[in-house]
Amino acid sequence: MSEFRSKFLEVYSVLKSELLHDSTFEFTDDSRQWVERMLDYNVPGGKLNRGLSVIDSYKLLKQGEKLSDDEVFLASALGWCIEWLQAYFLVLDDIMDNSVTRRGQPCWFRLPKIGMIAVNDGIMLRNHIPRILKNHFRKKPYYVDLLDLFNEVEFQTASGQMIDLITTLEGEKDLSKYSLPLHHRIVQYKTAYYSFYLPVACALLMAGENLDNHTDVKNILIEMGIYFQVQDDYLDCFGHPDVIGKIGTDIEDFKCSWLVVKALELGDEKQKTLLHENYGKADKDCVAKVKELYKALNLEGVFVEFESKSYNRLIKAIEVHPSGAVQAVLKSFLAKIYKRQK
Amino acid sequence: MSEFRSKFLEVYSVLKSELLHDSTFEFTDDSRQWVERMLDYNVPGGKLNRGLSVIDSYKLLKQGEKLSDDEVFLASALGWCIEWLQAYFLVLDDIMDNSVTRRGQPCWFRLPKIGMIAVNDGIMLRNHIPRILKNHFRKKPYYVDLLDLFNEVEFQTASGQMIDLITTLEGEKDLSKYSLPLHHRIVQYKTAYYSFYLPVACALLMAGENLDNHTDVKNILIEMGIYFQVQDDYLDCFGHPDVIGKIGTDIEDFKCSWLVVKALELGDEKQKTLLHENYGKADKDCVAKVKELYKALNLEGVFVEFESKSYNRLIKAIEVHPSGAVQAVLKSFLAKIYKRQK
Repeated sequence: MSEFRSKFLEVYSVLKSELLHDSTFEFTDDSRQWVERMLDYNVPGGKLNRGLSVIDSYKLLKQGEKLSDDEVFLASALGWCIEWLQAYFLVLDDIMDNSVTRRGQPCWFRLPKIGMIAVNDGIMLRNHIPRILKNHFRKKPYYVDLLDLFNEVEFQTASGQMIDLITTLEGEKDLSKYSLPLHHRIVQYKTAYYSFYLPVACALLMAGENLDNHTDVKNILIEMGIYFQVQDDYLDCFGHPDVIGKIGTDIEDFKCSWLVVKALELGDEKQKTLLHENYGKADKDCVAKVKELYKALNLEGVFVEFESKSYNRLIKAIEVHPSGAVQAVLKSFLAKIYKRQK
Repeated sequence: MSEFRSKFLEVYSVLKSELLHDSTFEFTDDSRQWVERMLDYNVPGGKLNRGLSVIDSYKLLKQGEKLSDDEVFLASALGWCIEWLQAYFLVLDDIMDNSVTRRGQPCWFRLPKIGMIAVNDGIMLRNHIPRILKNHFRKKPYYVDLLDLFNEVEFQTASGQMIDLITTLEGEKDLSKYSLPLHHRIVQYKTAYYSFYLPVACALLMAGENLDNHTDVKNILIEMGIYFQVQDDYLDCFGHPDVIGKIGTDIEDFKCSWLVVKALELGDEKQKTLLHENYGKADKDCVAKVKELYKALNLEGVFVEFESKSYNRLIKAIEVHPSGAVQAVLKSFLAKIYKRQK
């Protein structure tokens, strides 16, 4: 658990207060209350791993130097920008997926009197990011790089979401489109850039680094993000609901999961036919048949092998990096996710 | 009509092609086709006034100097960024308002197989703007100012949309919330910044100006934007459907229109009661009663007076501006909208 957690939470209140008194907009009382409630409901309720990892990474880059209050504040502000970005994606994703709950409470758009206004609330969340950046980083030499970074990562995430939406298109459930390269591409763009690369890139910029010199760091973090999502796909089916905190529904939802992609790769014609007939159906028996097939194909063993191979490859890639500080950042990320059960 | 129209249209194809081959994302064939179709459906089909006015304004700022091909291209690219911004707002607004048609065709989200994917398409449109800016302006001294400008104007527009959505909230139809200051605030933020200020601000940046020195220009354009929206509200009720190209439904839709706000201001208690009882209902008789009241209060005459007063005040404000070139830009905007019938 991050040593910066309580400081980080304090920064949320500061940023929120600034946004509620932003001079580029004249709030009405109603609209100020609306934004405050919307922020409190959607922004701080997650695990905050992405946000906290900006400060943790920055501290490792400074190699144990004591961070000033100002540095902790700024790294926290960037961390919150990522949490705001995540909140924006989740509010809109829940509308697109017609989801029911999120983080143990009803999805924002499902609350009374919210409905489709949630689309604009998502947009507001997204618009808060450049406000936060302008308030606190306008004079920094890396300000323009921060704007470019957030813009590029948002573009990549929205693009990943697009291929996910197109391939999972309701009414066109066609398993033959699913493949390992497609899975890889969706995960890389939809999840890995903003969850793994973005926090470290923020810390690197604050430490005065030029991101063009760190494509190796980017590549390692993207691979880690893919590994993380494969774990997620695995746990959705094989994790304990009590431990992961939800009951997985990837099979019912016709998700382009690593498991179904592997099953399509490893199964014979008969097993593929079974998948085509039973995948993406809400019916319990269909779900059970798919799970049986996963077991028959020993996907648990295939996953364990994938996990250890990924880990070894990542460690090797990290250890050839010339900077010890950067190695420490990457290893701390990997340690957090290796063999995770939730 | 702008002399640059055909050049401007050519630039659309160039920008689209760049976006469809953006190296920060690996398109699948399906997703490239999806984006192309989505762009062609939503971006170029409007009147293009906002986009074209960037080049027209830039030319006036250069005081008749011949523009180079490069200048025409860059001013057009900025103009298209505004058209992209508009498309993004419209795609999402139509979802939030549950609209049926837009620009004479079905709303994007109503097409088969689109549905809620349109939310992400709106996000894609928005994300194309920083891609266009980075592709063509990254090396310009005003690049960071462009990013700040688009971010600020988008924030203001989304904020204006928010107060509009909150006050028009379904199920809480409460006319007593409507007032001239509220109308003014919604219009200023939701429409005036991006439709009037943004095109001129883009042209000023390209011409090497510092926007901090042009708050007077901003104020004049915001006032022009409000005047424009009052015309819109007026034409929705009193314009000829054949001329304005649609049948107005502001009364049925419970819109915070300048007309209803004026009627609330000028009406006696009995007339206000009539408004409260009949405004915002789909019933034809209710609509007819509201229109009769507008006529009884001579809102046509009140509008004509508003129009001439606004015009005179704007002309006066423009003529004290120290730069003849800036005066020319502002006067050309005003000439385009003064006494318009559509």
